[in-house]
Amino acid sequence: MSSTDPSGHAGARGAGGDAVPFRIGLLGRGTVGGAFFELLAERADAIAAETGRRPEIAGVLTRSQGDFDEILAGSDLIVEVMGGIDPAADYVLRALEAGRHVVTANKQLLSQRGEQLYAAAAASGAQLGFEAAVAGVVPAIRVMRESLAGAHIERVHGIVNGTTNFILTAMARTGAGYDEALAEAQRLGFAEADPTEDVNGKDAAAKMAILARLAFGAAVSLDDVPYEGIEHVTADDIAYARELGLSLKLIGSAERIGGGIALGVYPAFLYGGHPLASVSGSFNAVTVEAPAITEITLSGPGAGGSQTASAVLGDVVSAMIPPASQLPAPIDLPVVRDVASAFYLHVEVADRPGVLAQVAEILGLQGISIKSVVQRGIGDDARLVMVMHPILESRFRAAVDMIERLDFVRARPRAIHVIDETFEDGE
Amino acid sequence: MSSTDPSGHAGARGAGGDAVPFRIGLLGRGTVGGAFFELLAERADAIAAETGRRPEIAGVLTRSQGDFDEILAGSDLIVEVMGGIDPAADYVLRALEAGRHVVTANKQLLSQRGEQLYAAAAASGAQLGFEAAVAGVVPAIRVMRESLAGAHIERVHGIVNGTTNFILTAMARTGAGYDEALAEAQRLGFAEADPTEDVNGKDAAAKMAILARLAFGAAVSLDDVPYEGIEHVTADDIAYARELGLSLKLIGSAERIGGGIALGVYPAFLYGGHPLASVSGSFNAVTVEAPAITEITLSGPGAGGSQTASAVLGDVVSAMIPPASQLPAPIDLPVVRDVASAFYLHVEVADRPGVLAQVAEILGLQGISIKSVVQRGIGDDARLVMVMHPILESRFRAAVDMIERLDFVRARPRAIHVIDETFEDGE
Repeated sequence: MSSTDPSGHAGARGAGGDAVPFRIGLLGRGTVGGAFFELLAERADAIAAETGRRPEIAGVLTRSQGDFDEILAGSDLIVEVMGGIDPAADYVLRALEAGRHVVTANKQLLSQRGEQLYAAAAASGAQLGFEAAVAGVVPAIRVMRESLAGAHIERVHGIVNGTTNFILTAMARTGAGYDEALAEAQRLGFAEADPTEDVNGKDAAAKMAILARLAFGAAVSLDDVPYEGIEHVTADDIAYARELGLSLKLIGSAERIGGGIALGVYPAFLYGGHPLASVSGSFNAVTVEAPAITEITLSGPGAGGSQTASAVLGDVVSAMIPPASQLPAPIDLPVVRDVASAFYLHVEVADRPGVLAQVAEILGLQGISIKSVVQRGIGDDARLVMVMHPILESRFRAAVDMIERLDFVRARPRAIHVIDETFEDGE
Repeated sequence: MSSTDPSGHAGARGAGGDAVPFRIGLLGRGTVGGAFFELLAERADAIAAETGRRPEIAGVLTRSQGDFDEILAGSDLIVEVMGGIDPAADYVLRALEAGRHVVTANKQLLSQRGEQLYAAAAASGAQLGFEAAVAGVVPAIRVMRESLAGAHIERVHGIVNGTTNFILTAMARTGAGYDEALAEAQRLGFAEADPTEDVNGKDAAAKMAILARLAFGAAVSLDDVPYEGIEHVTADDIAYARELGLSLKLIGSAERIGGGIALGVYPAFLYGGHPLASVSGSFNAVTVEAPAITEITLSGPGAGGSQTASAVLGDVVSAMIPPASQLPAPIDLPVVRDVASAFYLHVEVADRPGVLAQVAEILGLQGISIKSVVQRGIGDDARLVMVMHPILESRFRAAVDMIERLDFVRARPRAIHVIDETFEDGE
């Protein structure tokens, strides 16, 4: 049963090596399953040190290999990343009934058979984790179940499908039509070969059904969520709407209306100030509104293999131990005082030849390279405004001191940090 | 001891009325304390139904009334919202040593005496909740402690002071100088009469010390976080930077550098694509980066009385019961199918007189009012693009069907939802 154990470094650390194993049965080994397998191997030592138990893969079930009953018997927890309803529903139900914890990324399963599974978990006391089913690494499930447990949620708006957000963002940025943007998304791996359930809104509807169950406590299934996709959106609509200050997103909506709830997924225009208006590329985001909190927005990359695997692992760790109520004793880490950063520099100068050259020479001597410059004004009000590439702060400050002493500099230069756009949203 | 019990409706519901009381000692009754008092009264029934215990205020300590020892003896949990180090530090420490749970919103206390308090909580097994100390309702603490428990966090960037973000946003929008924007913030209640610790960065530095402790597990105190404020930012800097595509924020930064960590608070320019670039007004936001997740951004209103009280209550509920691992059985809520929404309507028309009048008449008959119109083109390519004020969807669809039958309409009109900017960020 441990032939597929990925933790080749068992015993590499004292705490981890002696830990009691925590056996995980893995159902499915596609993109997410493979990423989970790798991530677990990488993090097993740290988790063992933290929880006192070493997570290991006790068995893997794929279409062509493995026996479910044997895997179930040898596991403390089942990770279900095979997708689809059959046979996943049967496996998950049997695992919960047998008192095994289950972590699943299967939105279709939860949105169609959720009540049966939630009831089975409640009956046996097993945990059912499903953070990975809704919005990639965005911790919408945990925040709703825990942080907002005391709140009366009025409305949830979500961008919960990364493929469609990628396509709509591309259409808005380039003026491309729907077909062209979809082809680009497929080429870059942000849309599948058959994108039907992403672009027609069904994927988002399943996720909104799960979120609505948590937000309002009502039994909401996929059938309760009417959905409309983005296939008929034109470049024209986006262009006209921009003139009106609007941007187009595929929005999932769930809200209290009178004594009931209203649900839906549809393309919608957002005003610039809406917290979801700036969510671009393949990112997902969820905004939750409740009177006491006003609103909270959570955003991050939509489901990719490694992100989904990370959300699965988070739920696995939560099942292994209750969330820590105490902080561990602190570790020692030195505080570094001199760090590289990009900088903005604003220098008021006399407007005469050679000014930029002399400033640039000083910067060059400190190894500082200039990313962009604006030079402006004449006579007494000339200014030199520059953005530098990242440089150790001490060297930048030394250069500024030298620049301040130049005879054509009329005031102390102003320096401000610049934070580069280091993250990737796939565009 | 229960003379100040706000739950006048005890017994109003079966489940809540019979619940064992959970006694809360409240230290401080300023803005946050008062808001907490009210919120608890409002939510006591729901919490009793959920947890089986009815939270009630067992005693209140203010400058002029109450006795700490007496309150401690009669409480299961202490809520500390008095602020400052003395005597709050002594009270919180004694409560934890006595095994009482503590929930605090006191960032200065945690950033200066945190290790002593964390150790006392670990020694006695009491819980110390402090979500409210960092970023208002933004659940940064819970997400870092739980969702990201398994992640190797590389960097945290935060906008964790609402006053300075309000001022910088106002400067960017109106071109106002710092003094003018500060005066406006004070007039609207977004800056205190003495704004020193907000505008000089000290408040943000305390919050970053707390976040860094969680992100990296190292003992970080306020003294480890160099800070620089926004007092010297000029309207000029913001205007020049905008030409370079940058927006200015007061950023708290904590990141791994080599084998150590680097910390700081300073004004910084962000490129447009940075997840914090669009956080405006008095909002707070925190971006956490780790390899497996890429990044997560959490945003919401900065600390206001009711938001901070809501974060305090969330921690109180978590101390009363462990986070629910099972979903409660579903409640019944009807699904409403016909809901009011604003809409965008795009109609291709023949370019002749009276077209807009006829379309407007149909809309008017259905009670639909037009918010904005763009009419464009001549001959065969004329278009009418409108955004409507919110209207019941059935009435809007009926109007669209009638418009489609007009003889000058050349194609099926395109209708798309519009989501209004309903939230308030104080501007």
